[in-house]
Amino acid sequence: MHTLLLSNADVLIYEDSSWSVIKSGFVGISGDRIDYVGQERPGARYQEELELSGHLLMAGLYNMHTHTPMTLLRGLGSDLPLDRWLHEAMFPVEARLTPADISVGTRLAMMEMLASGVVSFSDMYDRTHVTAEEVVKAGMRANLNRPILGFDPTETYEASIRVKESLRFYDEWNGAGDGRVVADFSIHAEYTSFEQLVQPYAADCLKRGARMHLHLSETAKEHEECKARHGKTPTRWFFDLGVMDSPVIAAHCVAVELADMDILARQGVSCVHNPSSNMKLGSGFMPLEAMLKRGINVAIGTDGAASNNNLNLFEEIHLASLIHKGHSGDPTMIKPDDLLLMATRNGAKAQGRSDCGELAVGKKADLIAIDLQKPHLMPVHDIKALLVYSAQASDVVMTMVDGKILYEHGTYLTIDKASVLDDLDTSVARLFGPA
Amino acid sequence: MHTLLLSNADVLIYEDSSWSVIKSGFVGISGDRIDYVGQERPGARYQEELELSGHLLMAGLYNMHTHTPMTLLRGLGSDLPLDRWLHEAMFPVEARLTPADISVGTRLAMMEMLASGVVSFSDMYDRTHVTAEEVVKAGMRANLNRPILGFDPTETYEASIRVKESLRFYDEWNGAGDGRVVADFSIHAEYTSFEQLVQPYAADCLKRGARMHLHLSETAKEHEECKARHGKTPTRWFFDLGVMDSPVIAAHCVAVELADMDILARQGVSCVHNPSSNMKLGSGFMPLEAMLKRGINVAIGTDGAASNNNLNLFEEIHLASLIHKGHSGDPTMIKPDDLLLMATRNGAKAQGRSDCGELAVGKKADLIAIDLQKPHLMPVHDIKALLVYSAQASDVVMTMVDGKILYEHGTYLTIDKASVLDDLDTSVARLFGPA
Repeated sequence: MHTLLLSNADVLIYEDSSWSVIKSGFVGISGDRIDYVGQERPGARYQEELELSGHLLMAGLYNMHTHTPMTLLRGLGSDLPLDRWLHEAMFPVEARLTPADISVGTRLAMMEMLASGVVSFSDMYDRTHVTAEEVVKAGMRANLNRPILGFDPTETYEASIRVKESLRFYDEWNGAGDGRVVADFSIHAEYTSFEQLVQPYAADCLKRGARMHLHLSETAKEHEECKARHGKTPTRWFFDLGVMDSPVIAAHCVAVELADMDILARQGVSCVHNPSSNMKLGSGFMPLEAMLKRGINVAIGTDGAASNNNLNLFEEIHLASLIHKGHSGDPTMIKPDDLLLMATRNGAKAQGRSDCGELAVGKKADLIAIDLQKPHLMPVHDIKALLVYSAQASDVVMTMVDGKILYEHGTYLTIDKASVLDDLDTSVARLFGPA
Repeated sequence: MHTLLLSNADVLIYEDSSWSVIKSGFVGISGDRIDYVGQERPGARYQEELELSGHLLMAGLYNMHTHTPMTLLRGLGSDLPLDRWLHEAMFPVEARLTPADISVGTRLAMMEMLASGVVSFSDMYDRTHVTAEEVVKAGMRANLNRPILGFDPTETYEASIRVKESLRFYDEWNGAGDGRVVADFSIHAEYTSFEQLVQPYAADCLKRGARMHLHLSETAKEHEECKARHGKTPTRWFFDLGVMDSPVIAAHCVAVELADMDILARQGVSCVHNPSSNMKLGSGFMPLEAMLKRGINVAIGTDGAASNNNLNLFEEIHLASLIHKGHSGDPTMIKPDDLLLMATRNGAKAQGRSDCGELAVGKKADLIAIDLQKPHLMPVHDIKALLVYSAQASDVVMTMVDGKILYEHGTYLTIDKASVLDDLDTSVARLFGPA
């Protein structure tokens, strides 16, 4: 059944290792899959047609490291040193979050992400089933996890509540929403972990064929402290405990060393670049150029809205395009071609979704339309440079997942905006007092 | 005559050295000036009223270093090394720009700037009268100049065409458009200048009571080459030639040294931070924290759209807020309070406009309204952090200069968008061939 034809859009495709544009082309959809991409109008008849002249169609974006419920904490404690930010601004509020708060934080985050072209995200937080329910209802795609972490060195694997919650979340939610929800395993970080939890948890991950989401060497401080503690880097420590026998999504990777990169490359670890968060918290610069040169699968993420302070993947692409040139003094490094892959295909690959992340026949119809009729997008000399250096999240006018339009010109088709605003008022008033 | 009342907006004001918000307040306008700011509805009757609940009203932004006609070259030669970018991508096209191209480039740039909350800009380019005409017609504010530069060491001041054009532009255009256009003097840079032009030109600037716009120590390379050539830094060289006896707008200032900063502070030079351009061209990090600590008047600019690749001042504010924390490792430096001043009042001060750059009674009514009902602007814990870290240019829904609305919800009141698009097609086809 040919369901929807997207007509007369410029269509950005990736073929034979390069990006190109089909000018004023057509994209056909059957159910949740793309069934036609071409310059000519297809012969088949489609049930519906959407005229998109003056727009660019491309694969939707992947926000590969988030803590969506933390949208409620957006802007709290900005410009504090990291430890004061955590202990004074974050932890006291997080300890009081209810499932209702998690729910509204997730919905608000999805509204923001859909409006900026994100079709899928990889989220780390607790009360994960609440987030999963909202993702299923909203029709988005997401890899979700309940991370394990520990503060008691004597805690056993069997006794750990967090381990139980994490395994239970995996067993109950993996594959939910027609496979749109994938449950991942997750270890918060080396500095919040003990070997007696990590090793059996990694074994359980491998046994289930799951993937693992980590914070890895986010700061030089934690990296050096790990070396002092264990005589090895966090990458090596996780590797030695079997964590990297499963596919891994490793966030930040700012302080990784050359030998770490060799391990990450060899094990096929996907690394997530979070430039805003790394800048804002003073963590520094991921060695992105070196990682790309080694063939590491690097994706992009926003981190939580509390340390960013938004979930705008266009901003992350833009920052990633600029800061490494400025930091290295080399304006030729980190090309738009790589950044567009990082934001789409590499994200899908990191999430283990081989039929996602590309605008191509047979792939899932996860697409976004960008309005090219904006002054800041004219003239078009180079569409890739335009997307990376000039475009804004607000240029996205349509976001589609599985062939269904979830966002169009400010309107959400699967999220009730009025309820989100009401629930947000309720949560904020309870958590922070009246405005 | 009370002309316009802006009602029920949150009003961001700067008083007693700090930013604060009047919740659901009122701003009254008489002609081109603000005549009321307060929490209560004013007693006076206004001819018109604009309801702005759910919006933030604040002073409009200053884009303090631009080359507006270069919007035509947006995205050309991205990721080339600087010298190849200049010689292969920029110069060949720039040599073929006609006054019609300058005109459409300026209009397109103003559309982009108005849509992102910019009320005034400081522009450096040639055929400056064409730009000035468009600024007068559009109703924007701008300091414009025709820079002098030289490649012939034997050229005399009297024989220099560029000097003649620069002086003539000053004499013909300073104060045009009810003072909205201010003509500046301008020296392109030390590395394109000879003493026998700079010294008498600086003297002419002082004689006319004008101000001077420069590129200053944009890169370490030009900075070091100047020291090798003259035995002194560009700052010292310009100072010794009398350039800093007039008020100066100095763009970039990436490679300035401590002794340079002392001169800049003492002479009251306004320095313009261009973070996107400095990152994109690999120039590096302006010593912003050190400059602010010395009390230097620092403003913000985009540079031209060819090296940015847009004219989005919100992006510059955002980058300026992030990159110095990342570069230094100190998340507490460069506060939202300073960035908001840099983007408004400091810009007006640099342009020599004492009655602009602030939302306060008696000042020019140069205002912008920001739609706070966007998912990425919720919840509001800290409005300053929200503006700096979370907001996007597209959140601006109204831009007003001299009490006149020039942009509102995608519509331009003084620029004919259809003509700009037609003229843009004509220019692009002639300069680059058919699309």
